[in-house]
Amino acid sequence: MTETFVVIGGDAAGMSAASKAKRENPELDVVVFEKGEWVSYAACGMPYYVKGAVDELDDLVTVTPEEFRTERDVDLRTGEEVVDVDPNAAVVTVDTGDETYEQSYDDLLIGTGASAIEPPFDGLDLDGVFTIHDMDEADAIENYVAHHDPETAAIVGGGYVGVEMAEALSAHGVDVHLYEMLPHVLQPFGEAVASVVEEHLREQGIELHLETAVSGFRGADRVDGVDLEDETVAADIAIVGVGVSPNVDLAAEAGVDRGPTGAIATDEYGRTNVENVYAAGDCAEARHVVTGEPDHVPLALTANRAGRAIGQTVTGEPTPVGDIAGTAIVKAFDLGAARTGIVDEERAREAGFDPVSVTISASSRAHYYPDGAELTVTLIADRESETVLGGTIVGREGAKRIDTLATALHAGLTVSELQNADLAYAPPFSPVWDPILTAAKVLGGNLE
Amino acid sequence: MTETFVVIGGDAAGMSAASKAKRENPELDVVVFEKGEWVSYAACGMPYYVKGAVDELDDLVTVTPEEFRTERDVDLRTGEEVVDVDPNAAVVTVDTGDETYEQSYDDLLIGTGASAIEPPFDGLDLDGVFTIHDMDEADAIENYVAHHDPETAAIVGGGYVGVEMAEALSAHGVDVHLYEMLPHVLQPFGEAVASVVEEHLREQGIELHLETAVSGFRGADRVDGVDLEDETVAADIAIVGVGVSPNVDLAAEAGVDRGPTGAIATDEYGRTNVENVYAAGDCAEARHVVTGEPDHVPLALTANRAGRAIGQTVTGEPTPVGDIAGTAIVKAFDLGAARTGIVDEERAREAGFDPVSVTISASSRAHYYPDGAELTVTLIADRESETVLGGTIVGREGAKRIDTLATALHAGLTVSELQNADLAYAPPFSPVWDPILTAAKVLGGNLE
Repeated sequence: MTETFVVIGGDAAGMSAASKAKRENPELDVVVFEKGEWVSYAACGMPYYVKGAVDELDDLVTVTPEEFRTERDVDLRTGEEVVDVDPNAAVVTVDTGDETYEQSYDDLLIGTGASAIEPPFDGLDLDGVFTIHDMDEADAIENYVAHHDPETAAIVGGGYVGVEMAEALSAHGVDVHLYEMLPHVLQPFGEAVASVVEEHLREQGIELHLETAVSGFRGADRVDGVDLEDETVAADIAIVGVGVSPNVDLAAEAGVDRGPTGAIATDEYGRTNVENVYAAGDCAEARHVVTGEPDHVPLALTANRAGRAIGQTVTGEPTPVGDIAGTAIVKAFDLGAARTGIVDEERAREAGFDPVSVTISASSRAHYYPDGAELTVTLIADRESETVLGGTIVGREGAKRIDTLATALHAGLTVSELQNADLAYAPPFSPVWDPILTAAKVLGGNLE
Repeated sequence: MTETFVVIGGDAAGMSAASKAKRENPELDVVVFEKGEWVSYAACGMPYYVKGAVDELDDLVTVTPEEFRTERDVDLRTGEEVVDVDPNAAVVTVDTGDETYEQSYDDLLIGTGASAIEPPFDGLDLDGVFTIHDMDEADAIENYVAHHDPETAAIVGGGYVGVEMAEALSAHGVDVHLYEMLPHVLQPFGEAVASVVEEHLREQGIELHLETAVSGFRGADRVDGVDLEDETVAADIAIVGVGVSPNVDLAAEAGVDRGPTGAIATDEYGRTNVENVYAAGDCAEARHVVTGEPDHVPLALTANRAGRAIGQTVTGEPTPVGDIAGTAIVKAFDLGAARTGIVDEERAREAGFDPVSVTISASSRAHYYPDGAELTVTLIADRESETVLGGTIVGREGAKRIDTLATALHAGLTVSELQNADLAYAPPFSPVWDPILTAAKVLGGNLE
């Protein structure tokens, strides 16, 4: 009898799992339910569509629904929403909009993703107020900018979305005000990165309002202002990007446990506590390689990788989903900012380490070679084991070098092992001592 | 009684050792003998001085002789050559040009470097024929180009120097012919890199003559042609860059052993077989992290690192010099090409591995993001252990990502461990799966 692998959610985790399972076992029935119409799209590309650096929204789609159906032989059912999971009967209930029906499964993957958090602001439903949670919303923002030619934007939240959308709207000549409740933008990147990025954002004309709480938006039908504690500031468009929360309701109702972060708890194979039910992507936890503890870092590579591994596991070859290091990189106008692992001492102490850290600045190229950029590198390690715990890099070029640190974290390298890595040098590409090595040298000195 | 650390050779290894030793123990007498006048200069920067990308030869000097003497309190004696080492008496004999004298030592570092190989060509001493072995030679080339305005150049040797000098002379409007005896340029980078680089060199107007032996140069006083097997080709300037050989005569005469590569054999602390005598830099071997065997890869970082470690060791804190991975990167016009570890199957078999390798091409950025470059990545692993043995990267951006692979080699990661590394993704910097991860995925499939 043919077995059936059912996938809930047609984005990174779900479609990776479906494609991999079908490739490994063409006999398997693979059914994907996606309540929307977009599948396998690059959410991370949406700010660049709004900016105008990407011409068509369709360009962000990696594989089209048609290609999944014809070339990959996946039974992709868009516009159909799974509204119930019954693990005892191994059946999901599907709502097509017109009717409901049941679909049985042998293995089930929950890849329901995450949703943009909607804070309790007044005026969230005004025209011109957006979150950026899906492709239709990206399209709506682009349309709004094109048709209403806003002069002033209020961006609420200084995370990835906020920083990227500041650049995107600024490219349209909009005066951008960025509001962040915390003392710094890009909180997960630590203060060394934040201070460099903040200076650059200001140079680019972004009005930064740090430690500033927004309470809501004003306007008749369309937004025309943003309410702060003491004043109202004009705004013709508003983007709210204050984080995402995992979509776990469907799973919770089916008896699937959530972990300490609130996302779905999974083991090293992406299995939940419920038999034959897996979870992956933005709705699920993953194990952090430095702490060994579950964490929730909803990013594209994690979703793709876990989906692919689960797709392999359900065809009979158990494959770990892999640990995460919380590696991330973001463009802020001309800067790249990157992080991996644990990047601040407070977080390190919470995780049980005795942290020691350094921040250094060094050129991305040989000092005499033209057009080098200043790179600021932070490196943090545990005093006793001397293991590298994480780090950050920010600068006009070279932020992708964070991958060297991420690899060191996966390998559990000590500071002196990292310091002795034979990294590439030639004047156009690096000083003799790559800035990462310089940071490791200085940190090694502090450990003695 | 004050101890004395004597260093022979004032470049990367020697000056790093001298500076570190003096910093760790200010009581130590540190004496450096440098037969020339230049110390601590960036030999790798010389092609960019010739090109005109670096204004002054002095820009290539990291620390001046005066700074070593006054700020670092190193007894630097330029223009003085060590002509004999007597390990039994722990004394070196120094020739100042006017006289000779003896200097005793407690510890001795041999950092005599390497010399450009001079092949047995006719006409090597003609005006306009250069090797590029030191700063004076770089100056002479720059002068010759400025004063004689050559139309056609013959570059003999398609290694780093040849490729970099092709770019440098091309920038002056010179027609460049590059002669290489082997079937490909950049032999240590393997064929996948070579074929990309060769295509690019041709696009840039370089005439490549592969598998072509040069027998000599012609001309009355100044060079005007290069002799091949069957013909003579016009050349108004010629650069010979066919490799370097370690300067080991002084060491050999003192009873210091050479290793299998012909360079000075050293242990993990940079010690030679002779008591209290160390060797580092381009004259010395280092242990290769993949094979565990001694190797000779004369590069700047290795010299700096080993010198620094020995400087620490002689002050009483034994510090390993570190293994090498043979990591290297080179600019060829708009391309970066990089390598680490073992990059071809034949070499892997010689080292006792059962190699399997892949070469993939992928974009350096998300497919929809502007100005991405095609990266060609080769990855090679051992079939049985599945350990990564090495790899190469070539493309218009992103070659420095080789550091991720180099770090993986130092950590002894397997292909699946590398494949599961949490590398950084955002559309302006990478596809979701960094090309290195894609290569690891494909190679992992081939290992199954």
